[in-house]
Amino acid sequence: MQRGYYLKICGLIAEYNPFHNGHLYHLEMSKQQTAADYTVAVMSGHFLQRGEPALLDKWTRAAMAVRCGVDLVVELPVYYATASAQYFAEGAIALLDRMAVDAVCFGSESGDIELLQTVACALQDIDQKYGAELARALQGGTPYHAARQRVLREQYGIAFDFSANNILAISYLRAAKKYNISANLATIKRRSADYHDTAISGDIASATAIRGQLDRRPIDWQRIAAVMPKPAFKTLYDSSHYAYLNDFKTLVNSAIIRAGRSGLEQIRGVSEGLENRLIDNISNVMSLEDLVEAVVSKRYPKTRIRRLLINILLGIERERVQTAEQHLDYARILAFNENGRKIIKHVKRNGDLTLFSNLARDLKKYRKANPLIDLDVAATGIYSQVNHAVHIRSDYAMHPIEV
Amino acid sequence: MQRGYYLKICGLIAEYNPFHNGHLYHLEMSKQQTAADYTVAVMSGHFLQRGEPALLDKWTRAAMAVRCGVDLVVELPVYYATASAQYFAEGAIALLDRMAVDAVCFGSESGDIELLQTVACALQDIDQKYGAELARALQGGTPYHAARQRVLREQYGIAFDFSANNILAISYLRAAKKYNISANLATIKRRSADYHDTAISGDIASATAIRGQLDRRPIDWQRIAAVMPKPAFKTLYDSSHYAYLNDFKTLVNSAIIRAGRSGLEQIRGVSEGLENRLIDNISNVMSLEDLVEAVVSKRYPKTRIRRLLINILLGIERERVQTAEQHLDYARILAFNENGRKIIKHVKRNGDLTLFSNLARDLKKYRKANPLIDLDVAATGIYSQVNHAVHIRSDYAMHPIEV
Repeated sequence: MQRGYYLKICGLIAEYNPFHNGHLYHLEMSKQQTAADYTVAVMSGHFLQRGEPALLDKWTRAAMAVRCGVDLVVELPVYYATASAQYFAEGAIALLDRMAVDAVCFGSESGDIELLQTVACALQDIDQKYGAELARALQGGTPYHAARQRVLREQYGIAFDFSANNILAISYLRAAKKYNISANLATIKRRSADYHDTAISGDIASATAIRGQLDRRPIDWQRIAAVMPKPAFKTLYDSSHYAYLNDFKTLVNSAIIRAGRSGLEQIRGVSEGLENRLIDNISNVMSLEDLVEAVVSKRYPKTRIRRLLINILLGIERERVQTAEQHLDYARILAFNENGRKIIKHVKRNGDLTLFSNLARDLKKYRKANPLIDLDVAATGIYSQVNHAVHIRSDYAMHPIEV
Repeated sequence: MQRGYYLKICGLIAEYNPFHNGHLYHLEMSKQQTAADYTVAVMSGHFLQRGEPALLDKWTRAAMAVRCGVDLVVELPVYYATASAQYFAEGAIALLDRMAVDAVCFGSESGDIELLQTVACALQDIDQKYGAELARALQGGTPYHAARQRVLREQYGIAFDFSANNILAISYLRAAKKYNISANLATIKRRSADYHDTAISGDIASATAIRGQLDRRPIDWQRIAAVMPKPAFKTLYDSSHYAYLNDFKTLVNSAIIRAGRSGLEQIRGVSEGLENRLIDNISNVMSLEDLVEAVVSKRYPKTRIRRLLINILLGIERERVQTAEQHLDYARILAFNENGRKIIKHVKRNGDLTLFSNLARDLKKYRKANPLIDLDVAATGIYSQVNHAVHIRSDYAMHPIEV
């Protein structure tokens, strides 16, 4: 390899909904810890793993991140972005691996990559050896992670906190093993205590807390400004529209009604009974959040129900994208800076996927039917019905944002 | 049969969207011409044959009609209500026949039942003998009715006006022949010149004209009052919400996007190419009316496109209700008066269907899976997402309106 062409690139996995000081901290620590000069983030598009729409459209969020120092942002296809932690992780890790990054660095509550690796191996072991026991516990109403946590403690003597980012971290490690990826894996201990924190104090707050603040009247902009890098704050402040799950109420309701029990049974994430719980409760609730509250149980946590609502909204059927893995051969560029341009060159030279920057043009060359791309385009079309800052066919019309 | 139990009943087929002086004239003339004492109307529910939502919910419209003199109003299942003229007519005629009415009286521009019968027979002949020729004409872009009109004139020497109500009248006569119904058939010449008339003058105006007036600001209530019976006008005036096709824009758009080409191909009324025209145009238009304008052609008139949008909205698939005919064994009572109560007794005694007045209770006894009922309930649920005067589960909760 010619000297001067070698870039040390660190891959990140993110939603940036919106980009805040915690993300900035993670970005800087990741570069430091992996000794990388460049960063590429795989970011969810218009619908997220928590089962919610993105507050702002994907180009705006990607440009925010680039203005704050990420060099290149590509989109995680919505099929993966709205999947369970396992598939979310597999999609993101596979994409980064195909982009030929040198390292992947993710946040976790633990911050201890050795411990996480140990737990990842132990869990693989547990899932094989104790599958029947776990299934029984689940049948009995014990949440999956609680059941695994108990076995982990009793059989392996490991005390492990199954908090949101630790679970994702484990998923990344397992995905990396599954795909035998060559990138180094690193983790950064999250500075903010809890992903679900709703309070804002100091200079770090969760994205959840920021979104909560935005939903209050009057909006306390000063408080929000304190926890976001200036360029990200400015973009958020200037945006004309924020999308929330409840904005999709009539769309989700209609999709549930139209699908009926038999239609719902085709949707990814519907287990026995969930379709009935949705249909039975839809008439008694005022909002989608109330619907989630009505359907939630120990066995089916809120995030899972919300994700199901998004799957229904987008019509993601279990079978429709059965072959998702073999279609993960592209990455859509959302935003980049000068360094990002170099990464794009690197990916074209060393990567194992097609980079899209203009779908209307690129799809003519690509010439493959790809259910993942169709789903991305559909997700944008449906998102645009609520967030009027986005055009129904933005996926074809928008070029990557060059910062 | 015991004397005193015999009722002479005339069946009507209607949408009453809303009930106006033309409907009143038709009602009175129908009783006169068929010498009937009692009238029952089969009325479309929340979505209509023109491919539009009903201005007011079905119970309100039914009660309006009963206040103006119709004795009983039952619902035409939405599967038939939103079908082509042929299936609309077959559903309505079959329902009236199963209710054991003595006569069916419908409006027409012609007003000449002999001529209509002659044309109905000739058309049946034409469809058999000239099928290939008609198909060719259609391929060439000639509308179906224009092609048939030409053959009718050239081969049978009959000049016939294929206007909206004449077409429906012919469809009723053909349906009556198909089902070999025993009721007498009669027609009343419409007083208002044209179904599509948008102007209001004198005391007769089309429902289209009234809806048009309602959509203007300020609403000229005096003009509307002049063409509606007082009780109907009062109900219209007191209503808090009118539903229009465009109110369903985000719902229809999302349904189109979610379905995609392959999903659209399953929908009733999609012929080769229509799914592409919808998808290609959805991004260039501001409203559903604009979408209709963009997709319309000589071959696919506006009504057909609008109906297709409703079919997409409700998810009416070609195959899903393939067996519709055999499920048309019930009628839902929407509103009635004292006479209507007698008709209900008559139907229970002489009819060949189940009358529903309380779905939550009646479905427990009925105990049959019925895709037509499921579709009615879904249609109300989806209608309620836009018309907030209706609850999502009104079909279960509402009792017939007793006037």
